[in-house]
Amino acid sequence: MKEILDAYAAGAIDVNGAREKLLRLFYEHGDEFQFDLHRHERLGFPEVVFAEGKSIEQILTISTMVLEKSPAVFVSHLLPEQEEALRTAFAHYRIETSSRFMAIGRPLENGEPGAVGIITAGTSDIPFARECGLILEYLGIRVLNSFDAGVAGIHRPFLTLAKMEDADVLIVFAGMEGALPTLIASVTDKPVIAVPTPIGYGVGGKGIGAMISMLQTCAPGVMVVNIGNTVGATAGAIRILRAIKRGRT
Amino acid sequence: MKEILDAYAAGAIDVNGAREKLLRLFYEHGDEFQFDLHRHERLGFPEVVFAEGKSIEQILTISTMVLEKSPAVFVSHLLPEQEEALRTAFAHYRIETSSRFMAIGRPLENGEPGAVGIITAGTSDIPFARECGLILEYLGIRVLNSFDAGVAGIHRPFLTLAKMEDADVLIVFAGMEGALPTLIASVTDKPVIAVPTPIGYGVGGKGIGAMISMLQTCAPGVMVVNIGNTVGATAGAIRILRAIKRGRT
Amino acid sequence: MKEILDAYAAGAIDVNGAREKLLRLFYEHGDEFQFDLHRHERLGFPEVVFAEGKSIEQILTISTMVLEKSPAVFVSHLLPEQEEALRTAFAHYRIETSSRFMAIGRPLENGEPGAVGIITAGTSDIPFARECGLILEYLGIRVLNSFDAGVAGIHRPFLTLAKMEDADVLIVFAGMEGALPTLIASVTDKPVIAVPTPIGYGVGGKGIGAMISMLQTCAPGVMVVNIGNTVGATAGAIRILRAIKRGRT
Amino acid sequence: MKEILDAYAAGAIDVNGAREKLLRLFYEHGDEFQFDLHRHERLGFPEVVFAEGKSIEQILTISTMVLEKSPAVFVSHLLPEQEEALRTAFAHYRIETSSRFMAIGRPLENGEPGAVGIITAGTSDIPFARECGLILEYLGIRVLNSFDAGVAGIHRPFLTLAKMEDADVLIVFAGMEGALPTLIASVTDKPVIAVPTPIGYGVGGKGIGAMISMLQTCAPGVMVVNIGNTVGATAGAIRILRAIKRGRT
Amino acid sequence: MKEILDAYAAGAIDVNGAREKLLRLFYEHGDEFQFDLHRHERLGFPEVVFAEGKSIEQILTISTMVLEKSPAVFVSHLLPEQEEALRTAFAHYRIETSSRFMAIGRPLENGEPGAVGIITAGTSDIPFARECGLILEYLGIRVLNSFDAGVAGIHRPFLTLAKMEDADVLIVFAGMEGALPTLIASVTDKPVIAVPTPIGYGVGGKGIGAMISMLQTCAPGVMVVNIGNTVGATAGAIRILRAIKRGRT
Amino acid sequence: MKEILDAYAAGAIDVNGAREKLLRLFYEHGDEFQFDLHRHERLGFPEVVFAEGKSIEQILTISTMVLEKSPAVFVSHLLPEQEEALRTAFAHYRIETSSRFMAIGRPLENGEPGAVGIITAGTSDIPFARECGLILEYLGIRVLNSFDAGVAGIHRPFLTLAKMEDADVLIVFAGMEGALPTLIASVTDKPVIAVPTPIGYGVGGKGIGAMISMLQTCAPGVMVVNIGNTVGATAGAIRILRAIKRGRT
Amino acid sequence: MKEILDAYAAGAIDVNGAREKLLRLFYEHGDEFQFDLHRHERLGFPEVVFAEGKSIEQILTISTMVLEKSPAVFVSHLLPEQEEALRTAFAHYRIETSSRFMAIGRPLENGEPGAVGIITAGTSDIPFARECGLILEYLGIRVLNSFDAGVAGIHRPFLTLAKMEDADVLIVFAGMEGALPTLIASVTDKPVIAVPTPIGYGVGGKGIGAMISMLQTCAPGVMVVNIGNTVGATAGAIRILRAIKRGRT
Amino acid sequence: MKEILDAYAAGAIDVNGAREKLLRLFYEHGDEFQFDLHRHERLGFPEVVFAEGKSIEQILTISTMVLEKSPAVFVSHLLPEQEEALRTAFAHYRIETSSRFMAIGRPLENGEPGAVGIITAGTSDIPFARECGLILEYLGIRVLNSFDAGVAGIHRPFLTLAKMEDADVLIVFAGMEGALPTLIASVTDKPVIAVPTPIGYGVGGKGIGAMISMLQTCAPGVMVVNIGNTVGATAGAIRILRAIKRGRT
Repeated sequence: MKEILDAYAAGAIDVNGAREKLLRLFYEHGDEFQFDLHRHERLGFPEVVFAEGKSIEQILTISTMVLEKSPAVFVSHLLPEQEEALRTAFAHYRIETSSRFMAIGRPLENGEPGAVGIITAGTSDIPFARECGLILEYLGIRVLNSFDAGVAGIHRPFLTLAKMEDADVLIVFAGMEGALPTLIASVTDKPVIAVPTPIGYGVGGKGIGAMISMLQTCAPGVMVVNIGNTVGATAGAIRILRAIKRGRT
Repeated sequence: MKEILDAYAAGAIDVNGAREKLLRLFYEHGDEFQFDLHRHERLGFPEVVFAEGKSIEQILTISTMVLEKSPAVFVSHLLPEQEEALRTAFAHYRIETSSRFMAIGRPLENGEPGAVGIITAGTSDIPFARECGLILEYLGIRVLNSFDAGVAGIHRPFLTLAKMEDADVLIVFAGMEGALPTLIASVTDKPVIAVPTPIGYGVGGKGIGAMISMLQTCAPGVMVVNIGNTVGATAGAIRILRAIKRGRT
Repeated sequence: MKEILDAYAAGAIDVNGAREKLLRLFYEHGDEFQFDLHRHERLGFPEVVFAEGKSIEQILTISTMVLEKSPAVFVSHLLPEQEEALRTAFAHYRIETSSRFMAIGRPLENGEPGAVGIITAGTSDIPFARECGLILEYLGIRVLNSFDAGVAGIHRPFLTLAKMEDADVLIVFAGMEGALPTLIASVTDKPVIAVPTPIGYGVGGKGIGAMISMLQTCAPGVMVVNIGNTVGATAGAIRILRAIKRGRT
Repeated sequence: MKEILDAYAAGAIDVNGAREKLLRLFYEHGDEFQFDLHRHERLGFPEVVFAEGKSIEQILTISTMVLEKSPAVFVSHLLPEQEEALRTAFAHYRIETSSRFMAIGRPLENGEPGAVGIITAGTSDIPFARECGLILEYLGIRVLNSFDAGVAGIHRPFLTLAKMEDADVLIVFAGMEGALPTLIASVTDKPVIAVPTPIGYGVGGKGIGAMISMLQTCAPGVMVVNIGNTVGATAGAIRILRAIKRGRT
Repeated sequence: MKEILDAYAAGAIDVNGAREKLLRLFYEHGDEFQFDLHRHERLGFPEVVFAEGKSIEQILTISTMVLEKSPAVFVSHLLPEQEEALRTAFAHYRIETSSRFMAIGRPLENGEPGAVGIITAGTSDIPFARECGLILEYLGIRVLNSFDAGVAGIHRPFLTLAKMEDADVLIVFAGMEGALPTLIASVTDKPVIAVPTPIGYGVGGKGIGAMISMLQTCAPGVMVVNIGNTVGATAGAIRILRAIKRGRT
Repeated sequence: MKEILDAYAAGAIDVNGAREKLLRLFYEHGDEFQFDLHRHERLGFPEVVFAEGKSIEQILTISTMVLEKSPAVFVSHLLPEQEEALRTAFAHYRIETSSRFMAIGRPLENGEPGAVGIITAGTSDIPFARECGLILEYLGIRVLNSFDAGVAGIHRPFLTLAKMEDADVLIVFAGMEGALPTLIASVTDKPVIAVPTPIGYGVGGKGIGAMISMLQTCAPGVMVVNIGNTVGATAGAIRILRAIKRGRT
Repeated sequence: MKEILDAYAAGAIDVNGAREKLLRLFYEHGDEFQFDLHRHERLGFPEVVFAEGKSIEQILTISTMVLEKSPAVFVSHLLPEQEEALRTAFAHYRIETSSRFMAIGRPLENGEPGAVGIITAGTSDIPFARECGLILEYLGIRVLNSFDAGVAGIHRPFLTLAKMEDADVLIVFAGMEGALPTLIASVTDKPVIAVPTPIGYGVGGKGIGAMISMLQTCAPGVMVVNIGNTVGATAGAIRILRAIKRGRT
Repeated sequence: MKEILDAYAAGAIDVNGAREKLLRLFYEHGDEFQFDLHRHERLGFPEVVFAEGKSIEQILTISTMVLEKSPAVFVSHLLPEQEEALRTAFAHYRIETSSRFMAIGRPLENGEPGAVGIITAGTSDIPFARECGLILEYLGIRVLNSFDAGVAGIHRPFLTLAKMEDADVLIVFAGMEGALPTLIASVTDKPVIAVPTPIGYGVGGKGIGAMISMLQTCAPGVMVVNIGNTVGATAGAIRILRAIKRGRT
């Protein structure tokens, strides 16, 4: 920018010329700048690569680019051959997986302060919960887990909440009738991010019932992301941790 | 039938003639017979008149016919002008209403033995619960009520169940996220009939969310009827009371 | 609990200390207690393991835990490799399967008194009906079967009902247009639990048509579970058998 | 056409000129011709005016045009003010109505030979059945009625079919679970046109359940039209009567 | 029946005994009778076996039973291993297939009089059209074909109709936007049975768009069956041929 | 901008100060600039005010603002009381309406060169077509109309196209089965913008069937806007006219 | 509790008696306790009364109860007659409304620390935004507003964010294509709660499109509540403010 | 035609004979004519073969026919074995593929004048964009590409538009929340054709969310084709290029 301003000051360009150059600079610079720090610097969250529909080459290229700027790259909705290629290409990094999700990189030691509580209604929800856990772990954020806290045993939410005492924000996974986030949110005032999981069959199966149930919750303040959107839930939790950190200062 | 058999015995008709007459007799008789005792005698449940789309004349005619054979007639989905006409025509009967539902007749004193528990999640569900209550009251069946037992207060289901100790079967109403029948069914082994109510708005509104939630329940053995189908739920409960009565003998 | 009470009586703890210990005891004990007897003792129904989305290890662990407390464990929505692992691990138990469902254990001789009638509209519904039959058989409950009683032959429901004379409750399976439960319920006053099966294609296929048809039934008192939810239907029937048993005493 | 041919024969126009003129003639003539006789001559069925979204002027103009060429005009989905305007404008014709449908004209005495059977499952379906009846009556076609033949009384379809002996084709109306056409079609080999009516509420309400049920029928050869499409059903029946008439000759 | 009547005439049984025996006889006989002649005698149409969800044993048993009473058995929605088993078991019959459909038997020479026109919009619809053709051919009914008559070429429907001059009833297949039956029905007064095919993708794909388009047709009298329901369309056409035959006599 | 550049050149601010000021300038200026000329200058299209959910005050304020910069303001989805208020407030402008749409302003004499053809399938589509016509007329763009060109008369599209010879782009309205744009697009290579209208009832009613049909079209290059979105269709046509104008130069 | 413990210590009751009394005590006490402080104490949020389906008496009773314990009561989905009754009954309180929503009470001066940013895409979203604003104002929480920040003017989100610098959490309202929360969340790392509003018509109308768009967002961490669920969004924001407050200490 | 005219002139046939011959000639000739030049001559677009549901023979036959008349044939929705057969059969042509799409032929050097801009929101959309690119390249039309211009980086649309300066029409691909076409259309007045891609999962997945978002756009004049309908979008763009070419002359 200084160059343009100096060129104008020196009379080498006129106002219109300066305007055009500044505009171009602004957007292009903004774009580059955004690419550099994008996601991890700005949102506390590196790019997550959605693998479905991408070629292996695309995935490797993007992942390499992300890893240059971020402590880790996360790849979701992987196919087996894509997974294989990533394992080979990034063998020198720590790699962790949960079903179709892969975390690659060098985990941070101290990320955002605070802790995220991860709760599942059933055991079938655990792979989704682990995706959240991996992202948070690689980003150096403390995780508290309580799995299989489901509604069917009505006392279990209380035990779960006891384990969650240190959590600043809760991510609650449930499939089928998806009632757990409602129960949790009715007995705590912590932020609750509800994630429907694609568990269940028939009418309302594949997470539709859980999704609708969470949107219709009678407990005030349940916030919902799409079915199986572990990345969105984790990013939402990190936004809240950042708001807490900012609030502290 | 004796006539036909005798005519055959007397040679007045041959096998084919007898066959034809018997066939006609059978179906027509069956049909008449069915009309006489239909619903209340056979199913313990008189005809319920679905008013929407019927003329006032049709409703009055059908109601009169039902009242000749049953202690009461129940009319659902009434429009105001239909309600008015019924009030006038049946002024000499006891009439009770709940929103668009009307019970007309002379309540039985002793209907099926046993008791039906009626539970609602919220106060908006009460008009639906009252429809069940009116039907059962007119049919001489004992009713136990526990309204506003909703999930948001997680201890309330226990208190509700304490009140339901004498109930043989439970009808549970819920709108919105519809989680209450799941909670109730996870702490009792009594038959639970779940009725979604058209409470709620947005995605899953008008009872769709509650319906799907009840079908996706993780508690085993929740039985569901359509949104707002109080008649179906009550008839289902009476079927169970009759099974209990039959089991006793 | 006695220890806490005695400690208080002995003055070793004060009211607040007692309160905290009792609270913790209550929930934890409740939770443990619930685990011990859960489902089979309380609901007459052991845990059913939904295999989809669970690892083989999870399934084996849960199944072993259930078998320690219940006469049988039922595993639904099995994948072939999961089935293989279960067969190997539980080779010393009696194992029965119906498509993706497996019953493992030592069948009870005398379970709940009474009998459950199982009716299917077509032959394609039979695998679903067999799931019900297996659960009931392992739990020592009498089963009456009438398969292929479909609507297309309008007399068949009468023959079916004749076979069902001893049944206390009927479970009726139908796919496609799902009309059979309506027909059955219009000629009997027994409790009717309708189970849509995922038979059919095109608009309303995969059981959607049958489900909607059952919810829209013009016969009073048909109670519905989700498409293919044999476990829910069986548990509902057992709840009714228990209500009958309780009513007897 | 003769003129063009003669002009060509006379050398007044060349091949290209003839081609262009013929093309224009063909389409324009075709269009005019089609307008003249359209619907009633060709399809045995006059134009039916769909009133919703049309101005009163449009409806009066179109109706007048149809009445010049046909024995009757039928107007569907009428609003009260449209109905009023039609009554005034066509006071010298015979006018019959059924809810939002109006038939105006001079009924034919002898229309297509043969008879159409009209069957309804319930009394709420009768206004729809009457629309069919009015169209057929004005077109001089014999009608056989059997109303309230519903599934709930399982013998009733047989009685209904006895009344339908003379019918060449059956139009069967049903709302709610829509099972009647399936039952009828399973005991007769006559053509069955099924019409879902918008009766019912909750999931599958407003005729959706009946529609899906009819499309999923297990009885072979049930032919379906849209919910409440009485005009389509009647026109379908007339096509079949015409096929029979053509087959006779 | 004669035995019962004679026993009564002989005084061996009283009226009640006769009633019970007759009732049982009626239904059982009805059922057997129905089985004997069912479908082909009564509906002009043998049983069609829906293979999906049936075991190979069930399919072979049912097919054998049907072949004893009918000229052919038709099996739809076949899996490869089911197809293989049928080919082996019925190697001595003529076997024809079209994708997942199989016709087995000895084609009739002279079935119902009259002819069925089969029209497809595109080439992708042809396998469905061939299913109709095979059923009609085995049942000895004349078929007229006109494939690929689609809307995109607006003149083609006229050529198609010229080929269809001898047809008594038309079956029109279309996927995607499903407009062809509307065009055909607007230029002929023959009965038109529309069959949506599962061609197309995205919104309205898999035949949904075609189905809805056919139900919304602005041409009067288009009759619709479910997506890909070739059996239903053929049975509907045969019902109409039978109505024509009956009308002739 | 010159001021900032000069301030920098004069050393009154440093690079960072200049950056901040430029950034703020850019966005705010951009925003103001955009407001001034927005829509009509840039997109050839003034703001269209969506009245539903807006207060009368909001509508009057926005309309006044738009009229200061544009030849006309268009208000859609008007309620009667909103319409009344607009009529009063803008009595000195030319006002035209079509059902719930209002055009207010001083029509341009010469807008974009070229012509837009407006075609409707039926008479019920005309109010929607008139909305397009009004917008184009106020913006000084030539309009060619051909109403009621529906599919049911298969020759009519040819006549319609003859009238459309001068049109550069066609907007085609259809409700019900929505086939007209497909027919039109199969016989012309002009751009075709298809607009579903909310005509029709039952399955696929309210324009859903027409929408899906248009998206599933077998004619290549039909471009679709939402149901009843006359504004979008008109704006799309104007974009094309502008592309033609630009192409000319 | 002390009484029970003392009774046990005194030997007046045994262990079983103590257990039973404690259990009853625990739940009832818990329930009462929960009632007292429920919502406002525990969740920082008083009860919100959903008026639809409730009688005026119910609404007045509940509102009075809430006002005894909370600074304000909020009533949503009001009908005009309900609104009137509330105005009369609570005339001595400050009352504010936004369309069908009413806030009644004595606004707190200092509620949760921190600020909530409220952003709308268009002017039609403002009534929804005002509901949030009223709740927050009554609860003594600082609000920052930026209305009409819509996507169509692509620079506007930047200006909006400048105004939001002090906000700890953002609530973003959008109807139609619902893209604004995605844009906002891609340029800030603050928590973003997205609220679809029922603006729009045709396919995806009434907020469905906005809802789906928000769930499908490509910006990480957008948290969604149901269409028009201003209460849920506000409660979610308050949960986050409380997490910040807790994080501070 | 000359023959017929001459025969008439010579008196060899009369008017009726001429009429019949002309009619037949017209349609058949029209049909042949249409076949010859169809699509490429008339619509600037050769036939695109939809491979799904077609046999390899059908595909080869149709492709050969198209290649005789057009510079290229395009085959979409290919299965691997179909692809293999095409590669073998047309080995002497230039063949290019993009996932399930294949272009075969001899690319034109100079097709329609003008340029088409192709923009994608993400990298997963690229295979769809390439289908458009291949079609345009084979037809000799200039293409401008800008991939991965997604909303998440809010400046990117400006850079993209800078690259698109020469484009006459823009095709914009987006999956997930599908916001990009709205952003693009709000800053350019060029025609924008929006193509939803089947990217995304959960509610609104497989392109449904993107489709609905594009239909609900708040930017005026976005024109939409079905999910993944690259052929339709390209054909639409070519229609616009032809309109520009026609406008030039």
